[in-house]
Amino acid sequence: MSRIEAPRDEDDAAATVDRAPGGPGALVDRLLAALPAGSVLTDPDVTASYAHDMASFCPAGAPAVVVLPRTVEDVQHVMRTATELRVPVVPQGARTGLSGAANATDGCVVLSLTKMDRVLEINPVDRVAVVEPGVVNATLSRAVNEHGLYYPPDPSSWEMCTIGGNIGTASGGLCCVKYGVTAEYVLGLDVVLADGRLMSTGRRTAKGVAGYDLTRLFVGSEGSLGIVVKAVLGLRPKPPEQLVLAAEFASASAACDAICRIMEGGHVPSLLELMDRTTVKAVNDLARMGLPETTEALLLAAFDTTDPAADLAAVGALCEAAGATQVVPAEDAAESELLLQARRLALTALEAVKGTTMIDDVCVPRSRLGEMLEGIERVAAKYGLTIGVCAHAGDGNTHPTVCFDASDPDESRRARESFDEIMALGLELGGTITGEHGVGVLKKEWLAREIGPVGLEMQRAVKQAFDPLGILNPGKLF
Amino acid sequence: MSRIEAPRDEDDAAATVDRAPGGPGALVDRLLAALPAGSVLTDPDVTASYAHDMASFCPAGAPAVVVLPRTVEDVQHVMRTATELRVPVVPQGARTGLSGAANATDGCVVLSLTKMDRVLEINPVDRVAVVEPGVVNATLSRAVNEHGLYYPPDPSSWEMCTIGGNIGTASGGLCCVKYGVTAEYVLGLDVVLADGRLMSTGRRTAKGVAGYDLTRLFVGSEGSLGIVVKAVLGLRPKPPEQLVLAAEFASASAACDAICRIMEGGHVPSLLELMDRTTVKAVNDLARMGLPETTEALLLAAFDTTDPAADLAAVGALCEAAGATQVVPAEDAAESELLLQARRLALTALEAVKGTTMIDDVCVPRSRLGEMLEGIERVAAKYGLTIGVCAHAGDGNTHPTVCFDASDPDESRRARESFDEIMALGLELGGTITGEHGVGVLKKEWLAREIGPVGLEMQRAVKQAFDPLGILNPGKLF
Repeated sequence: MSRIEAPRDEDDAAATVDRAPGGPGALVDRLLAALPAGSVLTDPDVTASYAHDMASFCPAGAPAVVVLPRTVEDVQHVMRTATELRVPVVPQGARTGLSGAANATDGCVVLSLTKMDRVLEINPVDRVAVVEPGVVNATLSRAVNEHGLYYPPDPSSWEMCTIGGNIGTASGGLCCVKYGVTAEYVLGLDVVLADGRLMSTGRRTAKGVAGYDLTRLFVGSEGSLGIVVKAVLGLRPKPPEQLVLAAEFASASAACDAICRIMEGGHVPSLLELMDRTTVKAVNDLARMGLPETTEALLLAAFDTTDPAADLAAVGALCEAAGATQVVPAEDAAESELLLQARRLALTALEAVKGTTMIDDVCVPRSRLGEMLEGIERVAAKYGLTIGVCAHAGDGNTHPTVCFDASDPDESRRARESFDEIMALGLELGGTITGEHGVGVLKKEWLAREIGPVGLEMQRAVKQAFDPLGILNPGKLF
Repeated sequence: MSRIEAPRDEDDAAATVDRAPGGPGALVDRLLAALPAGSVLTDPDVTASYAHDMASFCPAGAPAVVVLPRTVEDVQHVMRTATELRVPVVPQGARTGLSGAANATDGCVVLSLTKMDRVLEINPVDRVAVVEPGVVNATLSRAVNEHGLYYPPDPSSWEMCTIGGNIGTASGGLCCVKYGVTAEYVLGLDVVLADGRLMSTGRRTAKGVAGYDLTRLFVGSEGSLGIVVKAVLGLRPKPPEQLVLAAEFASASAACDAICRIMEGGHVPSLLELMDRTTVKAVNDLARMGLPETTEALLLAAFDTTDPAADLAAVGALCEAAGATQVVPAEDAAESELLLQARRLALTALEAVKGTTMIDDVCVPRSRLGEMLEGIERVAAKYGLTIGVCAHAGDGNTHPTVCFDASDPDESRRARESFDEIMALGLELGGTITGEHGVGVLKKEWLAREIGPVGLEMQRAVKQAFDPLGILNPGKLF
């Protein structure tokens, strides 16, 4: 039950930065000069446990030290020290990421923000929350809920992942088709720069256009431009509970036709998800959910409007017009929740198929989703592999998940090649290599392919402007 | 009927860039080497008409030449030429901006994008439009409407202003309280860089997190980082027609209390605007609208939901609870439109009061709006001036408009001082100096005050990364 890395240069991750003169001892002494002893971890068994995120098999080095700051000043001290000694710093949240963006480099300081976990303010009139980066997504979601508010971004790992990590990776989730990604909710940031200086960006007002939007630049920057130590997040009023509909189709292309009709029809579902036959079967095998295995594609649509049953009826009719063999609206919240549970189990269930998976995150224009799914089927057949697809279909965001036996070298090779071929197909269809998981180390060769040489040069120029010494999470993104 | 500039250094605007060796003749010859003659304007009477935007009295230089490109290649030729000759380039849309961001500098190339005005694609399934920068906002809005779609950003100048200009200034409008600003709708851009290279940023997919968000960096950058030559814009399904309610209050603070109750109550109005007594009277004087002049603050709220009358009833009750003296929901779309017309006339009406206005754009957290309005009253009394306020109240975005006689030097001085005092107050209340009009030349000293020295240094570093020669719209922002 683990994942494997994409091909890469073996020496990339640790090569960028010089080691501390005087070695790790000097580094730790300097850190301890202004940090409480309990915040600085040096036991190699312990520090090794901070080496990587959930993209197993992405390369990860051995940290020299792990620091758990509790204050902004702690973070500033770490960055000043790292700048003086030219030591790389790898910021981390809960390490639930799927691209290796939080993976350590040899000799680095791992800066784990998990202890800076206070919700500083929730304001229902301004509809903002002010939080430290280590706040867990679910903790914030529940806290704002008590004020009648809603923080939409809901990555699958929402019970574990932190807001700082969500900002670093620009996380998505099931909500995005209606509510967008993390980026839409980050209004302002406090950031400790590479040299330890503190910068405030953005605003806590509903609008604001004073200067370049550096706030948005930090979202998705994977800790490579600075350390987020505080965030002002926009909130929405809590919507009514959503009601879910399941529709079965005899082909993926019929399901995609339904999706096009729904979106073209002006509907605004709060969720529009697709699971292919492989995924449905895997979920049944794992959890005996009793999902319909005779179908080729199962579509889940939901509405959180004032009259969700009416919206589901309209969408159900569109599904039937597109050839759905069965349309079943949930009767209540409990039935809806059961359908969502099935969807949430998809990745775990696919991992159980052959022990190892590589999960991809290719997003295409939703009008091209049918071609994407057909292409993935072709790739699976070509390489003789099981590739299960679940997708945030309303966004065109697919998670093709290659299932393979990591102990079989030939199957592993084919898995990697199919993974690459799927990304290439996504780009051909006008899509992107990552809709919500980020680039990290997993896809950095592919980033260059997506954005081209001029784009890459300007991305590097921005990095250079913020981190001239290259000490912030080196070897990630590009 | 004109506006006047904020205090500034007289020699800022033209000082940044060296003049072309060989003078304007060489520049024009080089431009004509690859541009059709009709695209290159050199008659000084004509070029002078391109000198400034609508922020009259902001300093503006004399362009050496005006170029009206029709293709991306035209723009690339201009930028290559400008880079070779070290000539400043000032990009322009319809020049309806209110901060002097489009004002010429002496000897510059004015690059007017108004002839690149094609809507290249409207896709109802992907909910995107692809446009050239010179498309007029209203043209796009109407075109997408025909496909059942909605492009929300609606600055007051929407019948004239261009999408490129909207992107450059990150424009807002009446829609923002529900639908946000221009930035939320810019998914991808083609940009010609300072040296003439073409860069694509962003995506046309619903989601995408591949690399730093350079797209968003260009939004609101006032043409200082590159020339936008194509934009992929996100669209929404066309909502139902909105229904408007007018509520009268005996004090601004009671109106602000109502606004807080509405937002705290979880309502999502499509519009929430406030006009003070001065503004109401000015509108009546100009257009005999018959608005109630006995009231101190007139609140307009609207909903574009499936049952707007029910939403207006709920909001009307909250207004009454906050002390509204009169609550009048419109009975139909025609009555609603009449109320909106009154709001749209506000600025013109205030200009008629004393011949000249300075319109400000301070945005505060909406919970502080009451304090802001009280403060503006104090400033008006202190300086013995008429300051009318209309506000996108739901956003906390005020447009305090100082009315004065420009031929009276003392009144002019007081007007400038009051303008500055209002911005200082906005910052004190946790707000920003500009919610939607931008910085341009009008507020560049104030940008530094808002974002502080570290923020300013990083803004300059970003500028340097994209425009090392400083030829793109020099003297704006900072």
